[in-house]
Amino acid sequence: MLLAKGQPRTAQHVRARWVATVEPGHDDVLEDYVISIDQSGSGKILALTKASEFSGKVDLHLQNHLLIPGLINAHTHTPMSLLRGYADDLPLNEWLFQHIFPTEARFVFDAPLEEAEEFVRLGSELACYEMLKTGTTLFNDMYFHGDVTASVARKAGMKAVLTQAGLLYFGDDVRFSGLVESNVKFCSELISSNDVAIRPSLLPHSVYMVPEGKLQEVNAAYNAACAEAHVVIHTHLHETKKEISDVLEQTGKSALQILDGLGMLNKRTVAAHCVYMTDEEIALMAKSGASVAHCPRSNLKLGSGIARVADMLKSGVNVCLGTDGASSNNTLDMMTEMQYASMIAKGVTGDPTVLSAREVLEMATLRGARALGLEAKTGSIKVGKAADLVAVHLGGLETAPIYDPLGQLVYTNSRHVSHVWIDGKCVVQDGTCLTLRSMDLAAMDRLVSKLRDFRKTLPSAT
Amino acid sequence: MLLAKGQPRTAQHVRARWVATVEPGHDDVLEDYVISIDQSGSGKILALTKASEFSGKVDLHLQNHLLIPGLINAHTHTPMSLLRGYADDLPLNEWLFQHIFPTEARFVFDAPLEEAEEFVRLGSELACYEMLKTGTTLFNDMYFHGDVTASVARKAGMKAVLTQAGLLYFGDDVRFSGLVESNVKFCSELISSNDVAIRPSLLPHSVYMVPEGKLQEVNAAYNAACAEAHVVIHTHLHETKKEISDVLEQTGKSALQILDGLGMLNKRTVAAHCVYMTDEEIALMAKSGASVAHCPRSNLKLGSGIARVADMLKSGVNVCLGTDGASSNNTLDMMTEMQYASMIAKGVTGDPTVLSAREVLEMATLRGARALGLEAKTGSIKVGKAADLVAVHLGGLETAPIYDPLGQLVYTNSRHVSHVWIDGKCVVQDGTCLTLRSMDLAAMDRLVSKLRDFRKTLPSAT
Ligand SMILES: [Zn+2]
Ligand SMILES: [Zn+2]
Repeated sequence: MLLAKGQPRTAQHVRARWVATVEPGHDDVLEDYVISIDQSGSGKILALTKASEFSGKVDLHLQNHLLIPGLINAHTHTPMSLLRGYADDLPLNEWLFQHIFPTEARFVFDAPLEEAEEFVRLGSELACYEMLKTGTTLFNDMYFHGDVTASVARKAGMKAVLTQAGLLYFGDDVRFSGLVESNVKFCSELISSNDVAIRPSLLPHSVYMVPEGKLQEVNAAYNAACAEAHVVIHTHLHETKKEISDVLEQTGKSALQILDGLGMLNKRTVAAHCVYMTDEEIALMAKSGASVAHCPRSNLKLGSGIARVADMLKSGVNVCLGTDGASSNNTLDMMTEMQYASMIAKGVTGDPTVLSAREVLEMATLRGARALGLEAKTGSIKVGKAADLVAVHLGGLETAPIYDPLGQLVYTNSRHVSHVWIDGKCVVQDGTCLTLRSMDLAAMDRLVSKLRDFRKTLPSAT
Repeated sequence: MLLAKGQPRTAQHVRARWVATVEPGHDDVLEDYVISIDQSGSGKILALTKASEFSGKVDLHLQNHLLIPGLINAHTHTPMSLLRGYADDLPLNEWLFQHIFPTEARFVFDAPLEEAEEFVRLGSELACYEMLKTGTTLFNDMYFHGDVTASVARKAGMKAVLTQAGLLYFGDDVRFSGLVESNVKFCSELISSNDVAIRPSLLPHSVYMVPEGKLQEVNAAYNAACAEAHVVIHTHLHETKKEISDVLEQTGKSALQILDGLGMLNKRTVAAHCVYMTDEEIALMAKSGASVAHCPRSNLKLGSGIARVADMLKSGVNVCLGTDGASSNNTLDMMTEMQYASMIAKGVTGDPTVLSAREVLEMATLRGARALGLEAKTGSIKVGKAADLVAVHLGGLETAPIYDPLGQLVYTNSRHVSHVWIDGKCVVQDGTCLTLRSMDLAAMDRLVSKLRDFRKTLPSAT
């Protein structure tokens, strides 16, 4: 928009060939619309107007693009992008206990603070860069040194739900209590700061890594500190058969029952994975209002299995989508995650109508916002919601012809993100990430080189 | 390579950061090698030399690239790229009999020759363009008007195994015999022409679409005409539960038993899909030497199911990879197909060590060449074999860091094909396809517009 000198820029008007609003009841893709994005502070969507009825000046005309709500990654571990491809094709236990945990112990858990923070900073930058380039605007993270990831997310211009420290209990009461305390402090500070982009979460890694007594302690501490705010309860749940049978053997209960018994299964809960769920457990999830962050690629790659997503959706569970960390995926690309979710659900159920392109887009947007308690503010293209928007270029021959732009978005691979707006601010323009231009690649190379050396010392590194 | 005027250019020397030869027994990725490609006519690989021991002049230095053998798409229907996304998210029978077949009847089977040939020409061009851009050098096709696809493949500089006409039997003896006759003629001409790039195949669509008596007729006609040459027997086999039970009900036999009984199950056979196979059927496939073209994405998207690939490989079946047509996929990208093959095999077996990155690369290259009788000439990087090569750029932040280039090739999404050579000729350079620059996009737009109109007349078009 050309403006006279000194005149405030109040809105950006973007015309797009197609717009998928993901608003309930508006299944159809809008053709040739102008979306007006506030530039005076709120960063909200001001209007959505048929191009033929729009009388203002269009600032940007996206002629072969589909505009969708920003994608929401409902479960990830951003700093683990540094471990992308670190241990492929290994059995899960070997992968976790002989490769990932020892490496994280050396570089994060037991490392000097400055080194641990650098690992988190560089890994989060790498992750945010990839997420922005592939259309993610908000992510729900689980790792350590969340304050560092918060700084990176702010620099990237992204929204995030974070915690200060991942809660794994290795038998050290003092250390564990310290982590809980620092999490509660991080939570309270974020709540009182009224930061709209960075929100806090309560974080037990999982029932199998944090015993029931400790979970109770965690929950009580959070409830005391931040009972009134919507603090997400973010955890891993029923990811593998072995984990479920281990917990059952030790406690006589399933992890789901334990969470439920502690009052930790409710609208605030985001449970990653839920690969193994009985009909009764699905019904309980639906009744509780808890959300499932389905991570299809991570579940496949680690051999965990395939979640009953079609059944969960049918039962009314709010299923959203996550990538998990890049060490088990190996990409944080939510468009690929949508594709896998749809394809494997069709293959496993034998029903090609389940998890349609429309449905997986909703899982990757509106349902993610609902899971994180942000449905009123983002997750769909609606006047008054934040302008968290992604423009996907569908003009290449690899996506031609176009009969249904949503089908091509989900089922082809050469659709590219051209623009991303978060709270109305353009953070990716013509495929270039504007906010993370000055990444410290030399520091990353030095760290990766150390990781590579350490990898050689691991027992069965490939 | 700079040469004095008039001096013949005899070789191109390409230095690459990594080379995956896919030669049996050479599992490791070579680091920093120079590959010398003949430019004097044979188009063969002349030498593979450690860069530190190479004394000549390097013509092209691929600093962040992995060089792999050209990918081989062992089952596709290239002209159907025009129907990419034409009928997503529909039940299989509705998809095939209410959408795909009626459209093909209107635009191909029952269309005036000129129109049918234009459909095939434009669809094959679209397909070859996508295949080249994603690193496929050889494809095994099943469609109509194979002579037209042959022209397109020659123009694209690609290798192909083709047939003149897809053999579907709709009860018309005269028409069917005419198709068999034109297939045999196409086959004989290709054999006697000694064309090394375009090879013929015998083509019954499937046992469920061509009754046993007709299959026998087809087989006899081929055997009479081209018994001595390696003519691929290309067919669909055991794709869906329904198809298997239908054939069993009508004949008392499985499709596999019928093919075997007719002498059509042997080293020349490439059977697409094989989703449902008993242990005995897997043993029979292994013993026969027939190959399975596994098409994981098509099987998922149509809800057909998930083939027992890990079991088939363990039993010694030569399993290779195909994309199927773009109307059920919706991409001909073999790198994506490798990724799905690996991921779903791990997820379904619960064993993350099966179908490793190395194994799926072999399925997409050397095993494909073996299936098509071309193992001695292509499918791996070996001195004396054709220089069918693909350079994949792994230098982006979305594929960083690199601990194992093969893992990043298979499990990430932002690896891009930068160069492709076929018989030593560079057909893709820096991501630009050199051979298909002058596609008739206006004609494609006109045809797609007609397809779009026709789609509106179909009973349950989305
Ligand atoms: Zn996780
Ligand atoms: Zn097919």
